[in-house]
This record gives sequence, C-alpha cells and structure tokens, in this order.
Amino acid sequence: MADNAEVPLKKAEKQAKQAAEKAAKAAKQAALPVVGGKKSEDIIGMTVTKVDNFSAWYQEVVIKAEMIEYYNEIAGFFILRPTSMFIWAEIRKWFQERIELMGVEETSFPMFLSAKSLEKEKDHVEGFAPELAWFTCPYLHSGDKDLEVPVAVRPTSEAVMYPYYSKWIRSHRDLPFRLNQWNSVVRWEAKQTTPFLRAREFLWQEGHTAHLTEELAGVEVLEILELYAGVYEQLLAVPVVRGRKTEKEKFAGGYYTTTVEGYIPSNGRGIQGGTSHCLGQNFSKMFDIKIEDPNPKDGEKAKHLHVWQNSWGLSTRVIGVMVMIHGDDKGLVLPPRIAKLQAIIIPVGINKNTSPEDKKKHYDDLQDIKDTLKKAGVRSDYDIRDGYTPGWKFSDWELKGVPLRLEYGPKDAAQKVISFARRDTGEKGTIDIASLSTEIPTLLEKIQSDMYIKAEASFRAHRINITNWEEVVPSLDAKNVVLIPHCLAEKCEDKIKDLTAGKADEQEGPAELKAPSMGMKSLCIPFEQPAGIEKGVTKCLNPECGALAEQWCMFGRSY
Amino acid sequence: MADNAEVPLKKAEKQAKQAAEKAAKAAKQAALPVVGGKKSEDIIGMTVTKVDNFSAWYQEVVIKAEMIEYYNEIAGFFILRPTSMFIWAEIRKWFQERIELMGVEETSFPMFLSAKSLEKEKDHVEGFAPELAWFTCPYLHSGDKDLEVPVAVRPTSEAVMYPYYSKWIRSHRDLPFRLNQWNSVVRWEAKQTTPFLRAREFLWQEGHTAHLTEELAGVEVLEILELYAGVYEQLLAVPVVRGRKTEKEKFAGGYYTTTVEGYIPSNGRGIQGGTSHCLGQNFSKMFDIKIEDPNPKDGEKAKHLHVWQNSWGLSTRVIGVMVMIHGDDKGLVLPPRIAKLQAIIIPVGINKNTSPEDKKKHYDDLQDIKDTLKKAGVRSDYDIRDGYTPGWKFSDWELKGVPLRLEYGPKDAAQKVISFARRDTGEKGTIDIASLSTEIPTLLEKIQSDMYIKAEASFRAHRINITNWEEVVPSLDAKNVVLIPHCLAEKCEDKIKDLTAGKADEQEGPAELKAPSMGMKSLCIPFEQPAGIEKGVTKCLNPECGALAEQWCMFGRSY
Repeated sequence: MADNAEVPLKKAEKQAKQAAEKAAKAAKQAALPVVGGKKSEDIIGMTVTKVDNFSAWYQEVVIKAEMIEYYNEIAGFFILRPTSMFIWAEIRKWFQERIELMGVEETSFPMFLSAKSLEKEKDHVEGFAPELAWFTCPYLHSGDKDLEVPVAVRPTSEAVMYPYYSKWIRSHRDLPFRLNQWNSVVRWEAKQTTPFLRAREFLWQEGHTAHLTEELAGVEVLEILELYAGVYEQLLAVPVVRGRKTEKEKFAGGYYTTTVEGYIPSNGRGIQGGTSHCLGQNFSKMFDIKIEDPNPKDGEKAKHLHVWQNSWGLSTRVIGVMVMIHGDDKGLVLPPRIAKLQAIIIPVGINKNTSPEDKKKHYDDLQDIKDTLKKAGVRSDYDIRDGYTPGWKFSDWELKGVPLRLEYGPKDAAQKVISFARRDTGEKGTIDIASLSTEIPTLLEKIQSDMYIKAEASFRAHRINITNWEEVVPSLDAKNVVLIPHCLAEKCEDKIKDLTAGKADEQEGPAELKAPSMGMKSLCIPFEQPAGIEKGVTKCLNPECGALAEQWCMFGRSY
Repeated sequence: MADNAEVPLKKAEKQAKQAAEKAAKAAKQAALPVVGGKKSEDIIGMTVTKVDNFSAWYQEVVIKAEMIEYYNEIAGFFILRPTSMFIWAEIRKWFQERIELMGVEETSFPMFLSAKSLEKEKDHVEGFAPELAWFTCPYLHSGDKDLEVPVAVRPTSEAVMYPYYSKWIRSHRDLPFRLNQWNSVVRWEAKQTTPFLRAREFLWQEGHTAHLTEELAGVEVLEILELYAGVYEQLLAVPVVRGRKTEKEKFAGGYYTTTVEGYIPSNGRGIQGGTSHCLGQNFSKMFDIKIEDPNPKDGEKAKHLHVWQNSWGLSTRVIGVMVMIHGDDKGLVLPPRIAKLQAIIIPVGINKNTSPEDKKKHYDDLQDIKDTLKKAGVRSDYDIRDGYTPGWKFSDWELKGVPLRLEYGPKDAAQKVISFARRDTGEKGTIDIASLSTEIPTLLEKIQSDMYIKAEASFRAHRINITNWEEVVPSLDAKNVVLIPHCLAEKCEDKIKDLTAGKADEQEGPAELKAPSMGMKSLCIPFEQPAGIEKGVTKCLNPECGALAEQWCMFGRSY
C-alpha cells in the first residue's frame, strides 16, 4: 500500500470503528435474513465470523456482498443479484460452448406438467415413484374452464420431455439425440432452505440424451461429468472428487449416477456438486422410445431396441459452494475468472490540500489505467465516490470479494507504479504502470490458481483413508470426510448412518454440529481408488456388517 | 444446379410425387395440430399453401420445419425445438451484448407472486388494475403448511421486483439503476393461442430501470427501442415501423409506450413487435422508490424525488413474425444470420455405377468443403444419408428453411466448382471451390439483405396514407395498414374500430378475414410523420369525430 494512503486511512479506521459499533448493535438482526420492506443498509460490514457461526456468516455474506436477496413474499425463494448472475452467465457460456461442440442442441419445454400424466407414470414404474414425491408440491387451479386437470410446476423434466422423445426418435440415424435446456425448476422442499444450496426454485441446466448402446451413453456420462468438474475447478477454483454414487444414493429412476463431490472445510461436510446419470433403458421402456436394430443378426428380422438414455444437471448451487469455500471474515472472495469486477482502482492521497488541477490529472490517470486494463481483457473500475475514505472503500470492495485492489496516489504516480492488494491472501506490492497490461492478467491468473491450490490442499488434507472403525467418528468430528473399505450394500449404509450419528449431549465441538450430530452418508465411490483392498479378503469397515469390501467409498456428514 | 444431378432428380421426382400423394391423404390431419402420442412423420412436406389457408399454412410450417411441437398435456403451451432456440439464443447474445455496454445488469427474480401482494396493489392504483387481469389465472395451492397464501406465476415482474427497488435505490449515486432478466412468463390467455405469437407461457427478456429525470429515462426508452428494431431488421430481416402507442393502446400502468410494429403481408395485419415503456413516476410512487434530490434549490432542504422508471420486453413472438413473413409454400425460409444451418451440402450424381473409391473421394471432398466453410465462419453440414435421393433431400432442407443449398457432383468436382441454390429466390449458379471462403459468406449476406429489402418493399407498399375516409375499409380489405390524420382521442379510436368492422356476409375476400371482419386498431403514431397535417386546420379522419387531427396515426387489422 502506498504511504500516501495513511492519512485517509486513519480517518477510515475511525469511521470503520464507528461502523463496527453500529454493526455490533445490529448483529442480532444481521444474523437473520432481511425481513419485509426493512432497510438493511445501515448495517455495514460483516458482523459474524466464519469460525464462530458458519451458517450465520454464510447468510450474512451472501446478502451483504449483494449476491442474494431474500424474497419476502414466499419462504424458500431467493432473488439472484447481478454478482450471482454474472457468475451463472459465465458458467453458462463456458458449459454451453462445450456441449455445443458435442452436438447437444438447445430446447425449451413448458414449465407445467399435468397431474394426469404424473399418475400414469406412478402406476407404471415403482423405481421412479420416489422422484414423484417432488410433485406433491404446488398444484395449479385456474378460473379458466379450459384447464380441467390440475398441473404442477416441473421439479425436473424427464416426464415432460420423454413422451416427445418417443415421437422424435424413430431411427438409429436420429441417435445420438441430445437436448439441453436452461431453466428454473421448483421443488417444494420441506427442509430448511439455504441460499444457493437449497432453494424452492433454482436455475439449472438439464441435459437429456439418447444413445444406441450402453457404451456410447457411458462415454457421454463421463464427458459431461468432466465438464462439471471443469466448472468447479477451472472457473470456481473449487476442488471436487469424481466418482459414482452407491445404489442407495443414485438417481432413483436411473441405472447409475456419477457425481462430483465438494467439501466445505468450515464444517467438514461433503456436498454433492453435480450429477451425470446414465438412465439405462428404464425410461425408454416406460416411454416407449425405441428404434429398429441397425445391425440385425444374419437372417433375423430387425428387432426394436430401446434407446439408452442419460440425464445430467448442474445448478446455481455451485455458487454457494464457492462462497462457502473461499469467503472469509471480511466477506466474499471471488475467483478472478468469474468475478464481474476483477480489479477495483481506488485513488489514495487525494485530500483537501490537493489542487483541483492535480485532482483532475490524477483522475484522468485512473481512466487511463482502466482503459489499459480493459484492452488487456481485465474487468476493472475505479471508485471515486466523494464522501468516503479510501479505507471505507477498501472494506466495501473486500466485502464484495473483488479479487484485486489497485491503489493509486500521487506518490505512485511520481514513481510510475500502482500499488496492489490481493483479496485472497492480503499480499501487497507494486507494479510498473508500463507493464500493467501483462502483469495484471498474470496476477489474476495467479490468484485464481492459488485459490484452487489452497482449497485443493484443504480438501486433500481432510479426506482420510480409514481402516479402523474406531477412528471414523473422531475423524468426522475433526471435520474430515472419510474413505473406508465398503461392501456397497444399501442396508449397510443405513446402519453406518445410525452408528455414526451422535446425540447432542454426547458431542463436543461447535454448536452447529451438535443437536444431535449428523450420521454420515456415502458421498461417492471415487474413481481414483486408494490401494489396500484385497479382493475376497478385505472386509467392509462397518463392524456390524461382516461382508467383504468391494471398494473404497467416501462417506461424510453432508448437505 | 449441376447437370449430373438430373438422374437422381428424376427418381426424386417420382419419390416426391408419391410423398405428395401420401401427404394429400394426410392433409386433413396436417392442418390440425399434432395430437396426443400420434406419430406425424409419415406426412411429408407442406400440404397447405400460404395463399389458400394462411393460418393452417403457418401451423404446418412451424411443426414440419421442426420449430415447434404442440404440448399435448395442456392447451396453449408449446415446445421450442432447436431451430427455434438457436434463433432465440442468437437474439439473446446480440441484445445482451448491447445492453451490457449500456450498463444493464442481469438478475433473476422468483417466478411466483403472492396473492396478498397483488391485492395490496389493487387497492393502491386504479391505473394498474387492468394489468392485474393477467393474474386471474393460475393460482397455486400446496399441501405444504408453509404456504398459507395462494401464489400466482408472474405474467410480468413489475410487482415482483419493485418492492426491492425501493430497498436498493437509496441515493442518486445508485442511478441509473438497470436490471434485466431472461425468463418465461405465464399469461393464461383466453383467446386462441398461436405458436410464438400468443402462448400461455413464453420466453422473453424484461428490463426494469430507474433514472433521475424524465429526460434520462426517455433517452433509454429510445435506445432500447432501437435495439428491438435492430433485432428485427438486422437479425430477422423483418422491417418495422417505430412509433409511440396512443393513450388507448399504451401500457396501462405507464406514462408512455414506444413500439416497433410489424406487418404480415399474407393477411395484411399489423403486429406489435416489441415495446419499450416509460413508466414515469407511477410505479415509483406506488412502491416508494425515491432518493434525496442531489441538486436542492439554494437555501432549501433537499426534497425526496421519486425516480423515473422504464420497462421493456421482447419475446419469442419475434420468431413467429419472421416465419410468417419469409416462409413460402415449400416451408420455412430462414435469414442466414439466425439460421442454425446456413448451408447444406448435398452430393449429387453418385449412384450405383460410382466406384467405392470414387464415392469415398467425393465424400472426402464434402468434408473439405465443410471444413473450409467452418473456417470462413459459415455454419454448414453435408447430407450423406443413404436411401434418400438428392431430390428428396432438396425438399427436406427447403422445408427446414436452410438459406443456401450447395450441390456437389462429379462434374462439379471436375470443373472445381460447387453449384448453389438460394432458398429465398431459387436462384442458381456455381462458385469456384477456390473462392468458397469469400464467396459463400458474401452470398449469405446478400440473401440476408435481399430478404430484408423484399419484406421492406412489401411493408412500404402496404402502408397507405389516406385522407379520404371512404378509402379506409377497401384499403384494409386490400391487405394494407393505413396512416390517417387522427385526433388521438381514446373514444375516437373505439368509434373507428366499430366503423371499420364488417359483418361476415358483407365481406369479400379470403375466408379468414370474414366472419366477421375485424375492425381496425391503432398500431402506433409513427415517429416518421408524413407531411400534410396543418395544425389547427386538418381534421381527424373519423367522419363522426369532428376534432382536429394531432398526428398521422397508423391503424390496421392486427394480431
């Protein structure tokens, strides 16, 4: 930081102190969602720390960094503000470009589903029934005579789309058949809702494809999973573990489910990041989606073959995971690639004694710097709001997670440099004005990469291979997820959940993991398997199981 | 077309004839929307002409060109297929890029609105009440105890968004405040629905902005209107007239409405293309969106000022207008800029006598041509489906509206040329293979421009300035819209509608304009005013009015 920032900083400190006092008063209110038409802007800055009360911290950061507004009209709904929508738009562009290359086309199906068609399917397939629980939510009735049957808003679109797949897919030439839509879906969750992670309406993409063979379907499942991993790793700087869901945790109507699983260090919980399902032929049989065998056996008549289907979805949940992992006690920390504003330029050392001419000259420089950065592909702006000290501005942009702060004062100008402060590490330094257009993009990429490396190291350190059952619960309590040799049986998973759940009064540790502590669930069977399972010898780690272990399975307390 | 295409063409003609016979049989069915799980692919090609039955033609073209599928579950809903979604995605990219430069940010508000909040507004403002008629549509009820109030799906988001504007806009520094969202809205239309033009759910963007002054708001209203005109003119090759709506036709809750108006030559009807509203201070007073006056009068305390608001929306309707204007009896005709596939390459002259080596060499050429075109930024593909004659393929791609057909046979190969046929005019010719990468993009731009010029000439020829009342109805019957000197009074418009409506048995002309013929409505007051109105002298053209004319107003039968 440039020396000439010191004077205004002292003022800023005073102001920040006053703000902190004000904020402390409002702390109770801040820990709650903003309610009604009530104005919340008089509470400045974060009032809760990440360690003290993680869930209140999260709630506060998504509101104060202006990512989310609670929708007062109906519980469980959220407004996504521009900071969030910019991230979603970047993800959309990145993903859309890649699935287009794969030959996936865009479609848009209606948001409503008639209750009649739901009942039809209910009768048909037992395995699909659990998914239909989603539909026990909002039903529409209309004053219009036209509408004789009640309809529901889609919770996902399998039942909306597949009747038409049966109509459109008539020959092997129509395969692979791949459609995707970007929309919002409604799931009337009974559980506590959380911004991004669990909302009653959320934005997502849902891809629905059909293939000639299991193998071809399988290739796509993994291609898409790799794109989901790419969204996390390359855009959001969030590490994930790729793997398959167990039978218990897979998509109920499908054949198998692959997943990317994330990890929240603050509470040691796993979180499902995005799933790519192979549906097998379950739905194609249900909806009669078939073609004539293009390669009939010699001398035999061509049979009808049911197609192999996939479905895959990624939602705005990804944004919440990113916030939880990177945010700190000053607020949001955004990875540069998805930050709407990557660098904020703040003038310092401009005060009452600065002549109007000098001030103008200085502000012209800011514009030049911004122009230079724009040409270099950097999204930047300067903050010349009157009536705010540099220190106040520093805090404000830190709260909002801007990856890089650039300070520019008369002394910087004299030395032809600009001072910088990284949001992620707080590291400071100077850069020659002449080399801004190369140095700043490099620095932003360094921030992006360092954020990923840090998060990856944290996840790696908290993913513990365990071969002694006694170590499982202590390891969970130490905020780890665990890999254990497992038989992969559903019943055994249920038992493991029971065995690892604790009663509140037995537990130590942070309040939020008490009351009572959560049992662990299987997160996935990682594709990358550690060594150590000897087929036919190694047993399932569950002491009450006794079966042989099939694979290492990742378990954890989870969202 | 290359000579060597002749042989397969004869086969193709035979096949096409058979197809036509088959199609004729199915004609009755084709004129109806596809119903239920019924397969429609055995009806090949168009069975209705644009002149004979325009509305059946339209219905058939949007289905057979695979733009739309009727949603059988619920009347008035449509599935948008990839051809349509590609167009919408191109429009979205084009428009989004431009509003971002204006500083408009993206947001996403919930789809539901509580009935309670609707009632509150109902009490507040009479002027807004007519819009609330939209809300007498679907109401949600839930088994969930959480949901105590019924909610509606948004028909537009003023009432959803503006309570938050009042929270977020606190100072003149927050202005201009500009948000836009891309979503779908639901209006439970009682009228007959039509694909794209009137659907119960449709995709659109809705922009909602706030400004310090009327003047600043007004500048944006016109900037956006110009972008809407650009979508039509530059992307869809559709001419529009820019103008202001009359008091009778403006957005009920607003201050004034600007509009781009289109024209459908086949039935002479006008169609509203997109509207950009200045809401004035009506909503800001209703929702209490205000700031402190940044320029208080000397010695006076700063007053609170209500902001000036705009809202503006463009929907998938634009696609329907484009189809109606450019389509012909062979099917869809797409302007190149929004065609997913701009050029289709069809091998010709390949038959039983062609050696496998020659065939392979020929098909390799097709790939080279496609690669060349891709590098030149042309979206192309080749059609090497076995078992289809070139002629059948020609018809198929004509039906789907691909702007340019490229035919490539052995004779073309020998001469190092490719033969082309334009979809819009049928014009044929050849291009040297060596100059494909410059000639094809140029030709596509020529097609784009010619399509616009043709449509523009048609609209211009059917926009008649009339100063003799007796000529009005004959002019409408001749499929014109008319500009007349008008007093702009609401009452007079009602009267004009009555006076120009005819009873079915009095009318000549196509069946669809009978039963009974529609009275004319005001479409807009064009910004470009013809000469001839003498202030204080020229009278309103309505013979029963007697008031003075204010401006030329464009009237027409309309959608």
